[in-house]
Amino acid sequence: MSIAQHPDRLLPADPETRRIARGLVEIAEPLPIVSPHGHVDARLLAENVPFPDPATLLISPDHYLTRVMHSAGVPLEKLNVGPFSDEDPRDVWRLFCEHWPLFDGTATGYWVRSELVSVFGLDDSLLGPDHADELYDQLAETLSREDFRPRALFDRFGIEFLATTDDPLDDLSAHRQLAEDPSFTGRVSPTFRPDAYAKLVHPQFADNVARLADATGTPLTYAGYLEALAERRRFFAERGGVSSDHGVYSARTLRMDDDDAAALFEKGRRGEATLAEAEAFEANMTYQFARMALEDGLVMTLHPGVYRDHSEPTAARFGADTGHDIPVQTEFTRNLQPLLSDFGTDPRFQLVLFTIDETVFSREIAPLAGFYPSVFVGAPWWFLDEPDAMHRFRSATTGTVGFSKSSGFIDDTRAFCSIPARHDAARRVDAGYLARLVAEHRITQSRAEELIVELTDRAPRKAFRIHD
Amino acid sequence: MSIAQHPDRLLPADPETRRIARGLVEIAEPLPIVSPHGHVDARLLAENVPFPDPATLLISPDHYLTRVMHSAGVPLEKLNVGPFSDEDPRDVWRLFCEHWPLFDGTATGYWVRSELVSVFGLDDSLLGPDHADELYDQLAETLSREDFRPRALFDRFGIEFLATTDDPLDDLSAHRQLAEDPSFTGRVSPTFRPDAYAKLVHPQFADNVARLADATGTPLTYAGYLEALAERRRFFAERGGVSSDHGVYSARTLRMDDDDAAALFEKGRRGEATLAEAEAFEANMTYQFARMALEDGLVMTLHPGVYRDHSEPTAARFGADTGHDIPVQTEFTRNLQPLLSDFGTDPRFQLVLFTIDETVFSREIAPLAGFYPSVFVGAPWWFLDEPDAMHRFRSATTGTVGFSKSSGFIDDTRAFCSIPARHDAARRVDAGYLARLVAEHRITQSRAEELIVELTDRAPRKAFRIHD
Amino acid sequence: MSIAQHPDRLLPADPETRRIARGLVEIAEPLPIVSPHGHVDARLLAENVPFPDPATLLISPDHYLTRVMHSAGVPLEKLNVGPFSDEDPRDVWRLFCEHWPLFDGTATGYWVRSELVSVFGLDDSLLGPDHADELYDQLAETLSREDFRPRALFDRFGIEFLATTDDPLDDLSAHRQLAEDPSFTGRVSPTFRPDAYAKLVHPQFADNVARLADATGTPLTYAGYLEALAERRRFFAERGGVSSDHGVYSARTLRMDDDDAAALFEKGRRGEATLAEAEAFEANMTYQFARMALEDGLVMTLHPGVYRDHSEPTAARFGADTGHDIPVQTEFTRNLQPLLSDFGTDPRFQLVLFTIDETVFSREIAPLAGFYPSVFVGAPWWFLDEPDAMHRFRSATTGTVGFSKSSGFIDDTRAFCSIPARHDAARRVDAGYLARLVAEHRITQSRAEELIVELTDRAPRKAFRIHD
Repeated sequence: MSIAQHPDRLLPADPETRRIARGLVEIAEPLPIVSPHGHVDARLLAENVPFPDPATLLISPDHYLTRVMHSAGVPLEKLNVGPFSDEDPRDVWRLFCEHWPLFDGTATGYWVRSELVSVFGLDDSLLGPDHADELYDQLAETLSREDFRPRALFDRFGIEFLATTDDPLDDLSAHRQLAEDPSFTGRVSPTFRPDAYAKLVHPQFADNVARLADATGTPLTYAGYLEALAERRRFFAERGGVSSDHGVYSARTLRMDDDDAAALFEKGRRGEATLAEAEAFEANMTYQFARMALEDGLVMTLHPGVYRDHSEPTAARFGADTGHDIPVQTEFTRNLQPLLSDFGTDPRFQLVLFTIDETVFSREIAPLAGFYPSVFVGAPWWFLDEPDAMHRFRSATTGTVGFSKSSGFIDDTRAFCSIPARHDAARRVDAGYLARLVAEHRITQSRAEELIVELTDRAPRKAFRIHD
Repeated sequence: MSIAQHPDRLLPADPETRRIARGLVEIAEPLPIVSPHGHVDARLLAENVPFPDPATLLISPDHYLTRVMHSAGVPLEKLNVGPFSDEDPRDVWRLFCEHWPLFDGTATGYWVRSELVSVFGLDDSLLGPDHADELYDQLAETLSREDFRPRALFDRFGIEFLATTDDPLDDLSAHRQLAEDPSFTGRVSPTFRPDAYAKLVHPQFADNVARLADATGTPLTYAGYLEALAERRRFFAERGGVSSDHGVYSARTLRMDDDDAAALFEKGRRGEATLAEAEAFEANMTYQFARMALEDGLVMTLHPGVYRDHSEPTAARFGADTGHDIPVQTEFTRNLQPLLSDFGTDPRFQLVLFTIDETVFSREIAPLAGFYPSVFVGAPWWFLDEPDAMHRFRSATTGTVGFSKSSGFIDDTRAFCSIPARHDAARRVDAGYLARLVAEHRITQSRAEELIVELTDRAPRKAFRIHD
Repeated sequence: MSIAQHPDRLLPADPETRRIARGLVEIAEPLPIVSPHGHVDARLLAENVPFPDPATLLISPDHYLTRVMHSAGVPLEKLNVGPFSDEDPRDVWRLFCEHWPLFDGTATGYWVRSELVSVFGLDDSLLGPDHADELYDQLAETLSREDFRPRALFDRFGIEFLATTDDPLDDLSAHRQLAEDPSFTGRVSPTFRPDAYAKLVHPQFADNVARLADATGTPLTYAGYLEALAERRRFFAERGGVSSDHGVYSARTLRMDDDDAAALFEKGRRGEATLAEAEAFEANMTYQFARMALEDGLVMTLHPGVYRDHSEPTAARFGADTGHDIPVQTEFTRNLQPLLSDFGTDPRFQLVLFTIDETVFSREIAPLAGFYPSVFVGAPWWFLDEPDAMHRFRSATTGTVGFSKSSGFIDDTRAFCSIPARHDAARRVDAGYLARLVAEHRITQSRAEELIVELTDRAPRKAFRIHD
């Protein structure tokens, strides 16, 4: 049997703990998938066209996979990353198979193996250089089948709710098309992601805010800009959006005087803002977006602390999101103080905090969520979304805040076919953690059985205000 | 059987490790409680009046409990927090019972369950909304009994030494009364806590130093202020005090020129000190208190790194200590360098370092305590005082510093009736940790049996200079 | 049986995990020792003179041991530390035996016990004050034997490659002697360590750069200095060196203008550089050394984040490396960005990152090594070189970067006789970690068997470019 299908995969080795965990997995497994944050394109489901070849589907766009091969010396152009597409996809696949042993022990390796075995029916013992072509052909054949089109998989995966991440000016026509299609019963929800409209040093900032004013018919002033953003947020909410997502450099928040903010806005439009001014303006906008959330009810998610495009020549040649966004130290307590002092106890507000700096789990996120009704503990995100880190996350937060403020699992993925593997892994880690608490007589068996359902199903609905 | 009374509670699941741990628990369980730092009021024992109703005793004053309910949306006024007391205590108790499931997995939940079951004899399977009144009545009845008065519990809990935390101008009459009462055999020791006299931006700073000068007959100058503090420290030592406690914003220490310090002192008195000046003055005072400790022998305990009163409106409405003190990143290595360079190898000096930023355990505290004879490793404090964090703490420090510089367990509690549960939890976690080292053949069984006694009993006596 | 020789020492307690781990240990145990970074003096092996008495060999020079005794109040002069040598070595040994219980649970205690039992044949149950003289005599007798001379132990330990750490102006004659000696079959490789030539505030900086110019016949200018360093690097490479080692205060790197660097160089020579200038110059030199590495192929190792000589009076009295170098917080992502942007994807460059701030493992080091082909994940170093921390290290990095970018184990020791114990401990921890992944069905048994060989043997050869 493949380890990807072993019934005890990811469960603790201790026999009694494993026995308890197995029972909890049985409860969690049939639950639907609720995915409140991710990067699948709604058009994929709206148009339901067949997936492309195996490499173009699974390898080239997945920077989790390409970065690991790059770290072993594989040039990104050989993997058809970014603007490059000269390689035969079969050669890209061969490179992947050749480097398959690199992935042992990684989260990405776990998901890919699970996806290839459980979704596509491959024999993972054949992964490696010797059978690359054979596996490619098998995958290509499978991907051409009607029952492997996106909507068929959406149903088969048991997805009930899937959030996308969208530009504020997106017309959300794909979301509308899905909502109006009686043959599609899932819910695909847009997420308002205004980063490129709030960073004064973003290369398209001036263009973006000009297009925003045009699209909303608001004046091209700071006041008009705030009104335009609020309007687009309302549009997202009307189209089924439940949250806004903010990839900020830091979690800093500022109550900025309107005149000061307006002056920075104009400097940004002229391309004259310094980095410090851009950071201050972003801190002001995080505060402003929270204020807007009181009106429109969108849940706010914040994930600071990433140094984007770390390798300058790689960014210049291959573009963004090519595997070299690197975490930096993060701070929430001081940075969020103005925002939380003003909105943190307002029942209209909900804020989910994500981090890739795990030091803040016990020190900052759990204590904040353990006091402010608005604050929810975001699931381990990005680099921390792997079994050991997920266990450390539960261990670091539960003693202070328990389970009731959890965001539930966030797959955060653009790799549609990996969604079930990711949710399965998270449920198994939670089952293992709860089983340990039962084995150590810290919670009762019957509460663990309730809690696995709460963490899997009720938590994301509550944190993201997903109502039937 | 309640999980609160399971003989294997908190012990590792692996059967062999558990067997070893159980043997160590048997050694630790009969040892007396030595509690060198906490917040019980000495008058409670001096006057020995009956405890109030269950909610006023157990819920309203315990910000560990109220913050968790608040995080689920319960308004603090409904829990009679701070100046509020309009709610019927029975209604407060009902709210607690209704929200009981929130506490699963938390340290607070563990202590409360243990306390309710083991001290008050409740059936914890009844906790929840359905039996709230029944439990309230049972508790109220128990609390009215003679054998549930503070002194009776003090004896039943096996407390041998209990430190309180006191204002420098406290007359310590309750401590004197207890010391002079032949019918009271325990030892209740005052702790000198001068924070409100050393923070220039404390709203009562000017008043406090004026009262200090009055009380001691010293001139209201910086030099007089230092002499007054030294005098009060000597008074505390005479009344059985063994330590001074410092809740500093950062661990920064400064050798400040006396004239500079005097100038800041005057600015503080006039309410004109900036935040930076206040921090510098506090750093100077940490250094000065260490210098005084060489004279009077009080052990110094330091716990930096808390952002107090994070929610401004909550602080304004409910006061301090209402559940929104949030940890911030902490630094000891650079900050303590002046102090430790000057006093760190002096045999008259002892310094216990506490943190709620667990990143410093392996990086700073263990290396410092593994060199300086004066430095002791403070037990996991506040948010880190829960089973998983306590295990992480031992794991993070032992490899570098072993067990000989441990402070022993610190309950740090104002919840008198939870003291046995807290010490029991700490002993069990230590037993589990030692048992793992035995199971992994890293220490011998016989050393583990000595070490559980050392950690439980000898460590706090040594770190806090508690002599018979 | 001594715990130092128990076949299951350091292996996880769970029986099934232990069974798997035991199988992996059997694979790892016979592998040769490859030690790419350490502090043994090459003359020890070149001259092959008998070791001195037990205390002078094992206690006085080992600041891991002396700092722990000092932390319990033993004066360093009583241990013959630094310039002190008045104590009878037998008295030093007695002090050590008396304080032996302090070491339980520490990494140092583990190594010493293992060394005394497995290398020197002592009965560790006799360790303690009562049998100190008996053990001393037995050790002294053993140390006088021919088969306990350095070269005999080198062979018996199975060392294949041993790197030393050397001054840039060292003539490497001992290395040459060993290389040219047909009776010595191991490889002893010098490491270029230029710290004292790159820190403007180093007390010998001006002298050092003057001697450097003399020795290389280059002008005493910044340009000449760079050329002289490059020349010495080439000399090290010719003598079998594979790496340069950099004990920097921070990981900061700077692309500095040559004229600016030259001006700082001159200020440094005149003893006029500020601390900020010295830090900037060091950041520039880290960048320059990386640039040189492209030419000469030396692997660069970086270990920032140590506050050296923390206790001023101790440093003044006993010198450097006397147990009070204390870790500080470390940052790699921002600091290394200039260097990695310019050289990080160059196949001629390899950089091994070490830390004693474990928070950067998951946050910075694993993500950097998981993208840049040049970056390798340094083994847990110094204070983190103990079983629990080594397990945390694997747990923190593997999910992101897998096993392929590991540096292999680094013993970093000047205690020659402890080398086997250190490598044995590391192999056992890795076996335990891999066994857990197998038991949790995350990797296959057969891959674990390959990976234990990769981590033990192939990883250091690849990371340090050690070719046959």
